[in-house]
Amino acid sequence: MLVLNKIMIEVTFLGTSASLPTKSRNHPSIHLKFRGNSMLFDCGEGTQRQLAIAGISPYKVQNIFISHLHADHVLGLGGLIQSLSLMKRDGELHIFGPSGIRRHVNFYVNWDYFEPSYKVIVHQIKKDGVIFENKDYSVTAFSVEHTCPCYAFVFEEKKEPNLDKKKLKKLGLLNNPLCRQLKEGKSIRFRGKVIKPEDVLVKEKHLRKISIVMDANPSKKIVDYVRGSDLLIMEATFSDVIKEKAHDYGHMTARDAARIAKEAEVKQLILTHFSPRYEDVKILKKEAKQIFRNTEVAEDFMKLSV
Amino acid sequence: MLVLNKIMIEVTFLGTSASLPTKSRNHPSIHLKFRGNSMLFDCGEGTQRQLAIAGISPYKVQNIFISHLHADHVLGLGGLIQSLSLMKRDGELHIFGPSGIRRHVNFYVNWDYFEPSYKVIVHQIKKDGVIFENKDYSVTAFSVEHTCPCYAFVFEEKKEPNLDKKKLKKLGLLNNPLCRQLKEGKSIRFRGKVIKPEDVLVKEKHLRKISIVMDANPSKKIVDYVRGSDLLIMEATFSDVIKEKAHDYGHMTARDAARIAKEAEVKQLILTHFSPRYEDVKILKKEAKQIFRNTEVAEDFMKLSV
Repeated sequence: MLVLNKIMIEVTFLGTSASLPTKSRNHPSIHLKFRGNSMLFDCGEGTQRQLAIAGISPYKVQNIFISHLHADHVLGLGGLIQSLSLMKRDGELHIFGPSGIRRHVNFYVNWDYFEPSYKVIVHQIKKDGVIFENKDYSVTAFSVEHTCPCYAFVFEEKKEPNLDKKKLKKLGLLNNPLCRQLKEGKSIRFRGKVIKPEDVLVKEKHLRKISIVMDANPSKKIVDYVRGSDLLIMEATFSDVIKEKAHDYGHMTARDAARIAKEAEVKQLILTHFSPRYEDVKILKKEAKQIFRNTEVAEDFMKLSV
Repeated sequence: MLVLNKIMIEVTFLGTSASLPTKSRNHPSIHLKFRGNSMLFDCGEGTQRQLAIAGISPYKVQNIFISHLHADHVLGLGGLIQSLSLMKRDGELHIFGPSGIRRHVNFYVNWDYFEPSYKVIVHQIKKDGVIFENKDYSVTAFSVEHTCPCYAFVFEEKKEPNLDKKKLKKLGLLNNPLCRQLKEGKSIRFRGKVIKPEDVLVKEKHLRKISIVMDANPSKKIVDYVRGSDLLIMEATFSDVIKEKAHDYGHMTARDAARIAKEAEVKQLILTHFSPRYEDVKILKKEAKQIFRNTEVAEDFMKLSV
């Protein structure tokens, strides 16, 4: 997945087990690093230690996106919040999650014998849509079917518009302050001519998209939201052999995940959140690959660049 | 420390770091196994996974003793409580800790979308003394000086009194139901004679004692309580080089720990709860050994038998 001439989006799997941890798999959490941005998707128990082992500074994490409030996806928040204070973090830490996340965070922030050194800001997600954006990226949340309120997330790269220097030079506009307006999408009048942004903007070829779907029943809605993703990270708790059980528990099978990946025409599918019953997850990989060829299975500390 | 003809008390260190976890050290927790008894002393974040890695079933843990409510000693409770329910545990789990422990446990037990399969019983420690005993062992708690209310624990082996069969035979008492009363410490009248328990009881040579002192300033009180321990497990967060800082933070140094071990005439000292600043804890071991020769440093997953 090496893309030249781009700043990579670095993805690190910090935990790839479902419900119970195993010797080799911790509770779910995924770290994403892009330009100066550092964020976590879910934060299972022990995430702060997984970060230490992966060599990722928790200090730099600005945003944490929590899919839902089942213990295995959220119990690492308390330790991380308190350890960051021991490390004298300052500034703001933003935590996004379904209704109820505030009560969880407050429990840790208002802990006896603890005074946070920085500000923890909680955002309770109320409806589908963009829940965070800055100049580099946006994150969209959309609700999925599970046994409790649950959201999936779509990370999308953003780019400040670039102007074509050759075209600017030809028009006599190079280094002219009016360029700012063109970048902001406004037309300008210059030397008696109207110049539109599209006349001088460098056309962006492709902005990267990474979708992260944790605990969820398969659905058409997921296909719509993750369509065209460069990377789709999706739960595959069970094999299709026990499909009914999987669906009853609000989960999907490896085959379900592959079908979604295929239908949504994503570039790559990575399965994660495996039931501890699968000591070897090859069976899940094989099942998915029969439907969607570019499938991989996540391991703890697996890193990849998009 | 091999003692023949005895059922071993097996001690496993599940986490040996202070405050922050490191690549090789998790948050504090010690497992103790003795006859059919399985218990934890402290339960830092990630303890359930450390148990899995150590190959110890969390299912069998009956008692958890929490020294104090700083996050690094208690944050593993939530995951453990919930995972045991997923594993369909039944019966009772007893959790002992300072005032406030009930609020913590309730937060996890009353979690949304969770219904425990078993009973969690909380015991808030109110004063020094025996907080648990059954036929095999007792645990005594005693308060220590720290930056918040904190207890240290003394595990003591108990043994059902044994009667000397030869002496019973001589007295014509073998298999007589009156023996029950002698075992219970009561004198009996038999064939016109008064027989006292000490006339027929087998004298117990030595009952084992293990003391576990987590976060604490050094004190004479600790010496008194841990006196004669077969094993003293004690925090040694810092080196004596920064003794003042250690004491300000409510901790002791390796040298402090060794002095207590020496004065209390314990058989072996094991240091634990090391500040993450010590990548190599040899310096702490060396410091302690200058005062108390039989000193070891704990590592995660270190096991020993007493």
